[in-house]
Amino acid sequence: MKIIIVGASGTMGRYLVNVFEKEHEIVKVSSKGGDIPTDITSPSSIEDMYKQAGAFDALICTAGPTFVGPWKKMSDAEFRKGMDGKLMGQINLVLIGQHYINPGGSFTLITGALTHEPQRHFANASAANGAVEAFVRAAAIELGNGIRINAVSPTVIEDSPQYFPFFPGEMPTTMKALELGFCKSVFGVRTGQVIALSH
Amino acid sequence: MKIIIVGASGTMGRYLVNVFEKEHEIVKVSSKGGDIPTDITSPSSIEDMYKQAGAFDALICTAGPTFVGPWKKMSDAEFRKGMDGKLMGQINLVLIGQHYINPGGSFTLITGALTHEPQRHFANASAANGAVEAFVRAAAIELGNGIRINAVSPTVIEDSPQYFPFFPGEMPTTMKALELGFCKSVFGVRTGQVIALSH
Ligand SMILES: NC(=O)c1ccc[n+]([C@@H]2O[C@H](COP(=O)([O-])OP(=O)(O)OC[C@H]3O[C@@H](n4cnc5c(N)ncnc54)[C@H](OP(=O)(O)O)[C@@H]3O)[C@@H](O)[C@H]2O)c1
Ligand SMILES: NC(=O)c1ccc[n+]([C@@H]2O[C@H](COP(=O)([O-])OP(=O)(O)OC[C@H]3O[C@@H](n4cnc5c(N)ncnc54)[C@H](OP(=O)(O)O)[C@@H]3O)[C@@H](O)[C@H]2O)c1
Repeated sequence: MKIIIVGASGTMGRYLVNVFEKEHEIVKVSSKGGDIPTDITSPSSIEDMYKQAGAFDALICTAGPTFVGPWKKMSDAEFRKGMDGKLMGQINLVLIGQHYINPGGSFTLITGALTHEPQRHFANASAANGAVEAFVRAAAIELGNGIRINAVSPTVIEDSPQYFPFFPGEMPTTMKALELGFCKSVFGVRTGQVIALSH
Repeated sequence: MKIIIVGASGTMGRYLVNVFEKEHEIVKVSSKGGDIPTDITSPSSIEDMYKQAGAFDALICTAGPTFVGPWKKMSDAEFRKGMDGKLMGQINLVLIGQHYINPGGSFTLITGALTHEPQRHFANASAANGAVEAFVRAAAIELGNGIRINAVSPTVIEDSPQYFPFFPGEMPTTMKALELGFCKSVFGVRTGQVIALSH
């Protein structure tokens, strides 16, 4: 399978590249490097990326920039970080990518437990996640040619201990569970689902 | 109570104004008229509206413009209609309004069944709804001074028969159920909830 991984240089992305490149052709995408440097906040940059990558079987996105910070001073401009990034960035990967993906291919986007379990300072990520999850359900009934779409929703992940203090009592998602979550979407048959991971 | 109703000239808004003005002071807001013409896609227009309205006890929003149309040609620009409108419009009403609302006041936003029950051509509304619902859960843990926030989520409403063909098998939400949903939020004690209405 030819798999595009957007966010390939990040904590999740590096792990998934390492696992999936053993048996698959991986195209590594991130804003500052990889095989095809791409800014997902720009539709034309996404379009260029797909043109360069050529036909593919699966897209995994683990890139989802959001604003994290105190509520009282949260402004439209700050909130747009997640709206242009994790939300429209991922949605545009699908709206544009549907014209490049092979029949029977799949899109797998990243959300997170914040959709349903809010934490202080993370309202922007909650909103972006909620939008992406509802979008995934809606896109599944629209995509033709057997193309599937799902989201993977981890809690805080094992390899991000720097975030543990912000998620009291949260059982971290192991990297193995994260990998299996993406496997369910990419190699399985489900569509329109949010694959919620615990530990 | 002094209640601001944004979307006051619409199908839902007219009904709610008519009900609530019997016992409450209503400030009617919509883009083309009302007491204070306001464009919710503009943060500065929202700020001006709150300055003119003065301190208030509750804000109800039934204004939520989205793009409705065929999937294949759906573009970033079209998708922004709901992102700037139903999503950021409502979120900015809260981010800005928290600095004007009375202690113990409430915000009640509008979403809809499309969050969980997608329909062809309505992916933009699904995404906006999902974002607003997750935002409501997150904002509830951030707002101080006893300020509450909820969303009301109807199916297609009784007074919008023009939409019935797009929602096969959907039991319309009666206008009375819609009214009671808003009552639960405005006059009750709940916060961070999505008040899902059936019929
Ligand atoms: N870490 C966790 O515990 C956790 C838990 C649940 C959900 N999540 C979500 O999962 C996602 C990934 O998490 P992570 O910890 O792997 O993040 P990360 O280590 O910060 O990596 C983010 C990746 O996305 C890329 N990226 C950022 N902005 C981009 C843009 N505009 N265009 C293209 N690529 C961009 C980065 O590449 P460049 O540096 O080159 O831009 C990097 O490869 C985030 O959305 C996060 O909210 C994380
Ligand atoms: N109708 C249904 O069956 C149904 C069911 C579930 C959910 N919903 C949702 O409920 C909301 C309201 O539905 P509705 O049927 O009452 O809609 P509607 O009749 O079209 O009324 C919309 C109201 O919002 C105002 N508005 C639109 N854009 C605005 C903007 N940029 N700034 C300020 N005000 C603006 C309109 O005023 P102007 O004309 O002056 O702009 C009008 O007062 C929508 O978000 C819809 O998605 C509707």
